[in-house]
Amino acid sequence: MNEKLLEQGRKAREAARFLSTASTSLKNEALIAMARALKEGSDEILAANAVDMENGKKQGLTAALLDRLLLTQQRIEDMADGVESVASLPDPVGEVIKMWRRPNGLQVGRMRVPLGVVGIIYESRPNVTADAASLCLKTGNAIILRGGEEAINSNRVIARICAEAVKSCNIPPGAIQFVDSEDREVVVDLMRMSDYLDVLIPRGGPGLKKVVQDNASVPVIMTGMGNCHTYVDEFADLDMAVDITINAKTQRPSVCNATETLLVHEKIAAEFLPTAAAGLLERGVELRGCEKTRQILPEIKAAADEDWSTEYLDLILAIRVVDSIEEAMSHIHQYGTGHTEAIITRDYNNSRQFLAGVDAAAVFVNTSTRFTDGFQFGFGAEMGISTQKLHARGPMGLEELTTIKFIIYGNGQLRS
Amino acid sequence: MNEKLLEQGRKAREAARFLSTASTSLKNEALIAMARALKEGSDEILAANAVDMENGKKQGLTAALLDRLLLTQQRIEDMADGVESVASLPDPVGEVIKMWRRPNGLQVGRMRVPLGVVGIIYESRPNVTADAASLCLKTGNAIILRGGEEAINSNRVIARICAEAVKSCNIPPGAIQFVDSEDREVVVDLMRMSDYLDVLIPRGGPGLKKVVQDNASVPVIMTGMGNCHTYVDEFADLDMAVDITINAKTQRPSVCNATETLLVHEKIAAEFLPTAAAGLLERGVELRGCEKTRQILPEIKAAADEDWSTEYLDLILAIRVVDSIEEAMSHIHQYGTGHTEAIITRDYNNSRQFLAGVDAAAVFVNTSTRFTDGFQFGFGAEMGISTQKLHARGPMGLEELTTIKFIIYGNGQLRS
Repeated sequence: MNEKLLEQGRKAREAARFLSTASTSLKNEALIAMARALKEGSDEILAANAVDMENGKKQGLTAALLDRLLLTQQRIEDMADGVESVASLPDPVGEVIKMWRRPNGLQVGRMRVPLGVVGIIYESRPNVTADAASLCLKTGNAIILRGGEEAINSNRVIARICAEAVKSCNIPPGAIQFVDSEDREVVVDLMRMSDYLDVLIPRGGPGLKKVVQDNASVPVIMTGMGNCHTYVDEFADLDMAVDITINAKTQRPSVCNATETLLVHEKIAAEFLPTAAAGLLERGVELRGCEKTRQILPEIKAAADEDWSTEYLDLILAIRVVDSIEEAMSHIHQYGTGHTEAIITRDYNNSRQFLAGVDAAAVFVNTSTRFTDGFQFGFGAEMGISTQKLHARGPMGLEELTTIKFIIYGNGQLRS
Repeated sequence: MNEKLLEQGRKAREAARFLSTASTSLKNEALIAMARALKEGSDEILAANAVDMENGKKQGLTAALLDRLLLTQQRIEDMADGVESVASLPDPVGEVIKMWRRPNGLQVGRMRVPLGVVGIIYESRPNVTADAASLCLKTGNAIILRGGEEAINSNRVIARICAEAVKSCNIPPGAIQFVDSEDREVVVDLMRMSDYLDVLIPRGGPGLKKVVQDNASVPVIMTGMGNCHTYVDEFADLDMAVDITINAKTQRPSVCNATETLLVHEKIAAEFLPTAAAGLLERGVELRGCEKTRQILPEIKAAADEDWSTEYLDLILAIRVVDSIEEAMSHIHQYGTGHTEAIITRDYNNSRQFLAGVDAAAVFVNTSTRFTDGFQFGFGAEMGISTQKLHARGPMGLEELTTIKFIIYGNGQLRS
């Protein structure tokens, strides 16, 4: 186990103890100091980012990845504004969710409290550093950040600026810490630091997920794997279905809530598919269809079996014609990742059957899968989108960064 | 990976799909059938239990363990009554916890749904088989049960009776399954069955906990490690403090919510300790004290450093005199397992400081640590007591065996 990391763990635990009872005013003051320091430090951040960008180009990162890595004056201001907006959100810590009285007079309640120490492993976008640090600070958690190697220079500066700002408000320095190492062994050590980490949130692709599953001994919240489907029912409003399909696929194809497979009921396939395909092709989407789809759209590529389980994150859409809502739902359960699934229908019973029967973090009627997002849900913040069932499922806001403790007010009750 | 176990996983997944939308009436009908079948099968259960008891005696199990293993006609009836009482509890599945409207007209809500497939690894008491099966059935989860080897004959019969009763109500046979193997490798396989298990709940001692931490790749809810403290503040009502201390230590010393260490403020130690010690000694409790304690109670044994971190589960109590509430709280954080911590005080500020500052699943004022229990909290059932922070913390009732999914009702909204 890496000694420096263990020391960070100890400092984080100490800071978490302090933060667990820190006042909302103090936490907000620190958030505002962080926002100010990020704006003031923008030159330094841009200089560090330029080094990352240069390394990235040398290493041949794709244009999309370079864009995720790039910081500009505007992006730094957006990042700082994001931190400031977290200050204005309600503090969930200390909320007594429910309190009830037992026959013996005990008053039993559930109180929301911080998780403690949160670890996060993330890739690419350096703004995650400030986002995650601000959400954890607001919820009274200490955070240990481990960003991607490609962004290490940007992340290092952003984390230092945030940590210094927080320290200037007399919050212990363990509150925000950055794992400044390119050694991959350290990542595995982080996953096994059960004594110091209350939860680890990996944000990345299937590679990271596998490493975490194989190595983690700390509790984990898995995020972001999204093989999402839109199912156009036989009773769909077809104009609406075309608009939603195009939005779900093309509005931002690189993210986890974009639709990857379109399921179409055979009764409306001949009418729906040509219009939908025209709109999609016009926006540069490559279509890959099942046999029945290609009878209607003979010009498109055939979908292979692996297409059904691929999260393209790109302008590619797989299309399958199904003979019933049941077939649509079993396709979703066979190939989906339990992220977001949508039905387009005017039929009352089918909408209810789909909502009740589909097992996913988010199940929608008559809207775009792209809406699975903390900001779109009204949380005002997002720490990632959980695709597991334990603790948090779907977009994680501030509440998902807390746990509860039971409190009891007694006056001498004994158990008999 | 054990082939038979994988097959059980597949069947469980299938049953879970069915159960996720099964009506409350059907689930209750199956619970009542289970209760009836357990009563009718009592002779068979007693015969199997006699084999376990004989093996246990041969293997030299302690009297306490043999008592945990023993079933009687009365205990079987209690077990059946417990199953029946689960039928009368409200079904949490399908509850929409909250639903709100977004500016674009989307209605977003959180709906309670089953976890899916629950695995449980437990030791000793065979009634856990029926308890766990009934709680999972009520919450629409399929369950895979792996009981202790010492109770394998009893567990096998109980699980079969429950499974047959459920099947007689046309619920798929994967709903309740028993891992009928004494091979310990199978336990490790169960911990790594990520494709089929949504959560694993280990109920056992530190040995099991370690095996789980080292091997599990499925999400886990750790339960039951309890090194609990009672802190008698300088402002305590000393009569109440004596009663609570005796109750917390002796009412049932073998369970996780019994107090293991008594912390006493130095200002009242000389007055409080002799009375408390008299009551405890009278009930056969062995006392082990710090140096200051032994100045007041010179006849008792000295506590070694390891006493502070030992969960005795027995009639032994460690006693330490502290100079402040802060010292009490840091002792608790250093040695506690985050289970249950109590303060006895008449002081308003100290009660608030302790409630807010102590990091544990349950924090009590002026009552016995023994109250951390699903039935005592009014849940009507208990699946174990979680000592982790993720998903469930403290006693787990029916709600803790569910997760949520986000549902959205839209009418054509697109993301821009």
